[in-house]
Amino acid sequence: MNKLKASQLSQDVFGEYGQVIQKGGAKSFPINAGNCTRYHDLVTIDVTGEECRPIVSIVSGKPYDLPVEVPMVERHPFGSQAFIPTGNNRFLVVVCRDVDGVPVEPKAFITSPGQGVNIARNVWHGILTPLDGQSDFVVVDWAGKGVNLEEHFFETPYQVS
Amino acid sequence: MNKLKASQLSQDVFGEYGQVIQKGGAKSFPINAGNCTRYHDLVTIDVTGEECRPIVSIVSGKPYDLPVEVPMVERHPFGSQAFIPTGNNRFLVVVCRDVDGVPVEPKAFITSPGQGVNIARNVWHGILTPLDGQSDFVVVDWAGKGVNLEEHFFETPYQVS
Repeated sequence: MNKLKASQLSQDVFGEYGQVIQKGGAKSFPINAGNCTRYHDLVTIDVTGEECRPIVSIVSGKPYDLPVEVPMVERHPFGSQAFIPTGNNRFLVVVCRDVDGVPVEPKAFITSPGQGVNIARNVWHGILTPLDGQSDFVVVDWAGKGVNLEEHFFETPYQVS
Repeated sequence: MNKLKASQLSQDVFGEYGQVIQKGGAKSFPINAGNCTRYHDLVTIDVTGEECRPIVSIVSGKPYDLPVEVPMVERHPFGSQAFIPTGNNRFLVVVCRDVDGVPVEPKAFITSPGQGVNIARNVWHGILTPLDGQSDFVVVDWAGKGVNLEEHFFETPYQVS
């Protein structure tokens, strides 16, 4: 089993894979006579293909214990995919660079409580992996025509800790 | 001051104004080999106008105490607006029917913990009104060209309890 060590998620380290969704560091301004602060336009929604549209769903996932075995990654050729937790449980994010259709150089990140991520269209990533308990996420992704899923199983799975 | 009594939010009572966003009653199916449940496509995102696109933001609001004075409502001619809480604090939702550009028949609803709402495009509504404490919301609404805000101040404000 290949070993992979997760590091703390931040926009600096996640840059090429998408956006970290958080209030800290975001462009913000007051609304409603100063009673609210709006952290504005945090996600690059990128949906493409026939009859495509962005959709909003809730995904509720069982937790995993570290170390986590990661046998595969997947990607979505037609759309970005944002995961925003509705609680403070952390989750694990695994992403890879692509070289000629093959995922390489996997990296693993653990979110801070409240952080979300938007995984850019066609970026290889692991499945949703909550860490601290049953976790709900607001998900903004794609609906449309066609098969929006490609999977890659590693010859040797990764063990992420 | 006009008096208005809030009732509990549900899709049955909110029907014409938009969607209640919740797991209960939603179309759902398992994903990720049964480790997650996806409550699918809960929001009618409706954005229109020049250079328009849906955006995702976080809005953090100060709480109000009931009874709340509601002097005005607003509407957004170019886009729907979804509010999904990232915690269990409830919030107050005030909506009105429109008759010839004038908001009439205000109704007030209080969410159950975890419930969100999507306010349909051009539906008159009160400003974001968290009830139980400082509250963060995932907001899915509109960006584009033009003025996407119309306000109406009531001759006599409403007191909502």
